[in-house]
Amino acid sequence: EVAIALRPLAAGTMIELDLEPGIETVTQSGSVPGAGSAAPFLVLTGDIPRSHKFALAPIAVDGRVHKYGQSIGLATAPIAAGDHVHSHNLGMDDADRAHEFGTQRTALVAPTGPVPTFLGYPRADGRVGTRNYVGILTSVNCSATAANLIADAFRGGALDEFENVDGVMALTHQSGCGLVPTSDGAQTLMRTLRGYAAHPNFGGMLVVGLGCEMVPVDALVAGHGLPADTIVSTMNIQGEGGVRATVKEGVARIRAMLPELNSRQREPAPVSELILGLNCGGSDGFSGITANPALGIASDRLVSYGGTSVLAETPEVFGAEHLLTSRAVSAAVGQQLLDRLDWWQGYAAQGGGSLDNNPSPGNKAGGLTTILEKSLGAVAKAGQADLAAVYGYAEKITDRGLVFMDTPGYDPVSVTGLIAGGATVVVFTTGRGSVFGAKPTPSIKVATNSETYNRMPDDMDLNAGRIVDGTATLDEVGTEIFEMIIRVASGEQTVSEELGVGQEEFVPWQFGTVT
Amino acid sequence: EVAIALRPLAAGTMIELDLEPGIETVTQSGSVPGAGSAAPFLVLTGDIPRSHKFALAPIAVDGRVHKYGQSIGLATAPIAAGDHVHSHNLGMDDADRAHEFGTQRTALVAPTGPVPTFLGYPRADGRVGTRNYVGILTSVNCSATAANLIADAFRGGALDEFENVDGVMALTHQSGCGLVPTSDGAQTLMRTLRGYAAHPNFGGMLVVGLGCEMVPVDALVAGHGLPADTIVSTMNIQGEGGVRATVKEGVARIRAMLPELNSRQREPAPVSELILGLNCGGSDGFSGITANPALGIASDRLVSYGGTSVLAETPEVFGAEHLLTSRAVSAAVGQQLLDRLDWWQGYAAQGGGSLDNNPSPGNKAGGLTTILEKSLGAVAKAGQADLAAVYGYAEKITDRGLVFMDTPGYDPVSVTGLIAGGATVVVFTTGRGSVFGAKPTPSIKVATNSETYNRMPDDMDLNAGRIVDGTATLDEVGTEIFEMIIRVASGEQTVSEELGVGQEEFVPWQFGTVT
Ligand SMILES: [Ca+2]
Ligand SMILES: [Ca+2]
Ligand SMILES: [Ca+2]
Ligand SMILES: [Ca+2]
Ligand SMILES: [Ca+2]
Repeated sequence: EVAIALRPLAAGTMIELDLEPGIETVTQSGSVPGAGSAAPFLVLTGDIPRSHKFALAPIAVDGRVHKYGQSIGLATAPIAAGDHVHSHNLGMDDADRAHEFGTQRTALVAPTGPVPTFLGYPRADGRVGTRNYVGILTSVNCSATAANLIADAFRGGALDEFENVDGVMALTHQSGCGLVPTSDGAQTLMRTLRGYAAHPNFGGMLVVGLGCEMVPVDALVAGHGLPADTIVSTMNIQGEGGVRATVKEGVARIRAMLPELNSRQREPAPVSELILGLNCGGSDGFSGITANPALGIASDRLVSYGGTSVLAETPEVFGAEHLLTSRAVSAAVGQQLLDRLDWWQGYAAQGGGSLDNNPSPGNKAGGLTTILEKSLGAVAKAGQADLAAVYGYAEKITDRGLVFMDTPGYDPVSVTGLIAGGATVVVFTTGRGSVFGAKPTPSIKVATNSETYNRMPDDMDLNAGRIVDGTATLDEVGTEIFEMIIRVASGEQTVSEELGVGQEEFVPWQFGTVT
Repeated sequence: EVAIALRPLAAGTMIELDLEPGIETVTQSGSVPGAGSAAPFLVLTGDIPRSHKFALAPIAVDGRVHKYGQSIGLATAPIAAGDHVHSHNLGMDDADRAHEFGTQRTALVAPTGPVPTFLGYPRADGRVGTRNYVGILTSVNCSATAANLIADAFRGGALDEFENVDGVMALTHQSGCGLVPTSDGAQTLMRTLRGYAAHPNFGGMLVVGLGCEMVPVDALVAGHGLPADTIVSTMNIQGEGGVRATVKEGVARIRAMLPELNSRQREPAPVSELILGLNCGGSDGFSGITANPALGIASDRLVSYGGTSVLAETPEVFGAEHLLTSRAVSAAVGQQLLDRLDWWQGYAAQGGGSLDNNPSPGNKAGGLTTILEKSLGAVAKAGQADLAAVYGYAEKITDRGLVFMDTPGYDPVSVTGLIAGGATVVVFTTGRGSVFGAKPTPSIKVATNSETYNRMPDDMDLNAGRIVDGTATLDEVGTEIFEMIIRVASGEQTVSEELGVGQEEFVPWQFGTVT
């Protein structure tokens, strides 16, 4: 019942209704019917911003509005053909969705020919890294400045002679004390810190604490599954005699790691060893028809080769979860997803909100009206693959295939969970123009539309807007994304890495009481 | 009934009981009674770590143990004279404390002579700054890296020709999206950001956003009480065309502010214009008998001259709140404090904890057993002054005298609230050895004991441990703190400023749901 404006359309514009069935959201908008055109047409009743929706036919109050073949909401006012359809006349559809388990399974077939390979760093625990970083992990905010000062010593040309070392990054955060150690909030923080410590993209790990915080530095690394070839060192500011002494000693300890780390070489590994994190931020009305389904094609390709792809952002699955449960490999996996959504309903209510009103101001400005519309577009990132497993935030990912991790939609928190779980490459789709990066894992940014791509050329790796421009097909862009994943996993720098973005985006999910 | 070991004491040590009444916590420990000594003595039954307590007399199970003349808990096991008194034999005392309002008021008399002055930056709104910084405020985590990259351009010698400009600091944080805008959590974040934007220590303020976040950049500054002479500039990464363009433009905008900011001069102002933030971190058994009461003397001195001193850290007031309510200037003010404590009981319970078990592992290692003991020592920072007002977190402080702000005890979150409220100088006492700093406000660190002071000489401004060493009196150290406050407010650098600590410690209180 609705179409999406591919460019701003003025009131009075005549629209041809020569749409192919099944793609009504991609209309050749704005062309004025010529003499002799047999196509029916409608006239826009108001200005339609780019990527916003307009009605193709009248809709009565409480009438269901569909997109992607699914309900995106109910009309809250009478809608005429040619009307702008948005928050003023479209509301939430609270009707129960049928949650079937495993009724829509798909056997993905890998393309013929050999399994593609990438050049990665094989690690002692069998995982394969895509970067070779030294991390400076902090147990508490109190050691953040010391960690930054240590990392500063390796800026500029300090690593020039160690070409196989990608960098030294400080993993600072704002928590680590004033928590009840047994609480969910504290346990989540610890799991996240430990997941980073064990990540295959860290060849070396210096852990810096203050000395009187909630968890001792050794408890972040000892016995927590770090690869045996991770060079680990721990220290406390109180034990070293202060910030200045800590920085001096920390720099020396990392310098001592560098020759060994630099001797490590990239080696070919099958793409089945990759763990791909899926994410989106600043979504708009194009996300669900360009970048997200193109990423879904790349994700399915990776899964067909035996690789792992991780969907996340639970609040943005709300309203589309029935599409995932029907793809679950078992009722247990489907139920786990529903259980997480139940938890989120309570968590959102605590915050005075509800999952219904999730689209952010930026999403709404981009033409997304309801969480149903946003979610239907968001799950397109996960392609058609079966859902193999559901993980808690920052849990270590061990299954192959398409899996789900429970995270907020908020970008840095979501991707931090994925990386803690082991993601070695991330693809991030954005409509409004995100500048996200996420060291130590490279993050490929895909624009959903050409306007954003052209406006922020330094911050976008790929332009999926060509799909609506008519200059590339969904399949072509999907293949481009898949091929870029392999190149980036093999060492090609993403734009965020070139810009130096990705250290501040380490944001463990913080919840619970701070005393 | 208990004494504190001023140094580690071995089992079997004989202790003279030649204590003066009223100061039983400061004992001349470890001296063996000589021949002819008339004093009674006791023998330690076990090793007593430095700053831990031992019993001076037997205490039966459920017997009340006193320190500072107040109950610090009930014996949970029979305690013999000479026993170590700690978590194994001392538990919480849940008896109701009598909450009287205004029954213990004190008229503080200023010393004779003129009101002391400091050299500060008078601002257009009548407040007086103690530093002259440019801030780069971020509306959301997405602009954190851009803000850091802008600040990086002013490192090293870049400000050499602007000697009246103290620095350019990035105010980055981990939130700003995924919040319900009307929720307490979101409102608290916004109030904190606005408080920093309006702080008298910022002569210039560049606000950097992404462009699609919860709150537009202008909403952080426009109409929010910034001094008219704050040079304000706002920008969005999406509007500027990406991170690289934003950094270039942001650096140019700050460069353009510098000549005007550098023309500002320090001028004498009465100390009554200072807003002193009180805080402690990594407390130990000495905190309550050395640094905290010395700071209380300095605080009372400031209040006697008409200045403002702000106590905070609500969870660390629990159990000593009756000492504050009895000093409240009105029943309404006293009741506000009790209401905040009630709120905290619920908040702590949500986190699976309770205020009773607040002493952190570091506190406990330092000899603090119960929250009552910790709190009785903590409120000593606030001297004897009447309690004039109670503020919510990050609320602008407008009253004179001793006031209270509701914050967690967690150091960076607490001090961030105080600075958002307008604190222009902070004194921070520490037992275990904190390395805290808090730009743009100078933070003076006072060690509670000489061991910490000598172990971390680069990180401590002052040693209150001399009080138990016998080389300085409480009054002398209180006067030293007061005089250092004036020198530091006038521009003398604290050790944390020399080390470059204080940017990572901008940590707005984060609570509520993140979607
Ligand atoms: Ca259709
Ligand atoms: Ca997201
Ligand atoms: Ca006494
Ligand atoms: Ca504190
Ligand atoms: Ca930071």
